[in-house]
Amino acid sequence: MLDQFKIVLSHTTHPGNIGAAARAMKVMGLSRLGLVNPAKYPSAEATERASKAADILASATIYTNIHDAIADSRLIVGASVRTRSLPSRLVTPRELVSVIEENPQNSPVAILFGTENSGLTNDELHLCHYQVYIPTNPDYSSLNLASAVQLISYEMRLAFSEMQQLPEERVTANEQVISRAQLDGLLKHFEKVMTNTGYLNPDHRKQIDNRMSRLLSKATITESENRVLRGFLSSVENMMNR
Amino acid sequence: MLDQFKIVLSHTTHPGNIGAAARAMKVMGLSRLGLVNPAKYPSAEATERASKAADILASATIYTNIHDAIADSRLIVGASVRTRSLPSRLVTPRELVSVIEENPQNSPVAILFGTENSGLTNDELHLCHYQVYIPTNPDYSSLNLASAVQLISYEMRLAFSEMQQLPEERVTANEQVISRAQLDGLLKHFEKVMTNTGYLNPDHRKQIDNRMSRLLSKATITESENRVLRGFLSSVENMMNR
Repeated sequence: MLDQFKIVLSHTTHPGNIGAAARAMKVMGLSRLGLVNPAKYPSAEATERASKAADILASATIYTNIHDAIADSRLIVGASVRTRSLPSRLVTPRELVSVIEENPQNSPVAILFGTENSGLTNDELHLCHYQVYIPTNPDYSSLNLASAVQLISYEMRLAFSEMQQLPEERVTANEQVISRAQLDGLLKHFEKVMTNTGYLNPDHRKQIDNRMSRLLSKATITESENRVLRGFLSSVENMMNR
Repeated sequence: MLDQFKIVLSHTTHPGNIGAAARAMKVMGLSRLGLVNPAKYPSAEATERASKAADILASATIYTNIHDAIADSRLIVGASVRTRSLPSRLVTPRELVSVIEENPQNSPVAILFGTENSGLTNDELHLCHYQVYIPTNPDYSSLNLASAVQLISYEMRLAFSEMQQLPEERVTANEQVISRAQLDGLLKHFEKVMTNTGYLNPDHRKQIDNRMSRLLSKATITESENRVLRGFLSSVENMMNR
């Protein structure tokens, strides 16, 4: 599904932003880039900022007008912070995800980004089925072009990548949490040592026991951590027996 | 709540990234920045990249070690794409939001970002209660430092800003959708003109009526759009009557 998204940058002024946008796309697994009348392009600065995403630039298509850039798209979305005129429905990035999820057949999806200083023109916005608005600080809403591409690409990856979001390592953690019986053994050991050091006295025994129990449960102690704690407790016992 | 978040950049190599991170923070309403042993700082490049977020840089605190940077924080989170060793619990940005929402008293929250090339060190990760992992393309996971700060700041704004996510304009749209009676009037007008032009014949009348009804409902037609369509239909009628 991610290759159903086309990022269209219209009239971009700074070539560095094109490169940074390509990098932002690739890191989220998007690859289709369209450029409408970029001010300076191709450009060494774009290639440099793209870092290892130069392949995205190499396969980008350059258009002389926005209509050609979106001709093959079914759903057209404009990214914009302008809200004074609303030719199209205004949605947050997550609402946009819902719109696409509900009608996945409406793809390819083109997401348009306007020129750095003034954003999409009214004419460009009139081509859009939806206007996607990235929530920002009202006192400083100057979101960098590549950052806007980054955030939208991130939302699309979260929603439409078939890959799991977290790496395998979390699932097959190399170390197991101890069993409840081991945890009880550890608690008993603490209780014994705390009694022997004189820390636990009958007046506050129950309270301390409860706190230790809560603390050690919460910590989701692993086998190796259990060995460390047990070893420490034994060392205290050895010291006292000496 | 957003001022309970502190972004800590450890051993940042390129001052431009510090400036871009400050901008990324401010645009999402975050303001507390800590810098641990930045390679070149202060720097004109940082100030330039910060754009109008230079106030974030001006109020940033510089530390000589990571411990001082997080001393006042209760929840410590490391942003990292390294997963080979897992000293802390691995969560996605949205899972991190849940963790904070469930225990909002565990703030201030420090979110640590390591050096550009190799990320947080093992020693730094060992200070973290959680490791936040931003899902990326496994073939190209080279997320720019400022982009990582941008994505995390965005998630925190979405979850913890008290402001509504979409601007007021959507709620008080300046134009109303037409009433059902007006829509029925429009449909009747279409039906009449289509009959007069000879387009509607008894064989497919019902089918066309249904499609027009669906189309015009779906379009959520406003008053001014209704006037345009009515005007067009009348012009067709006028032409035929001439």
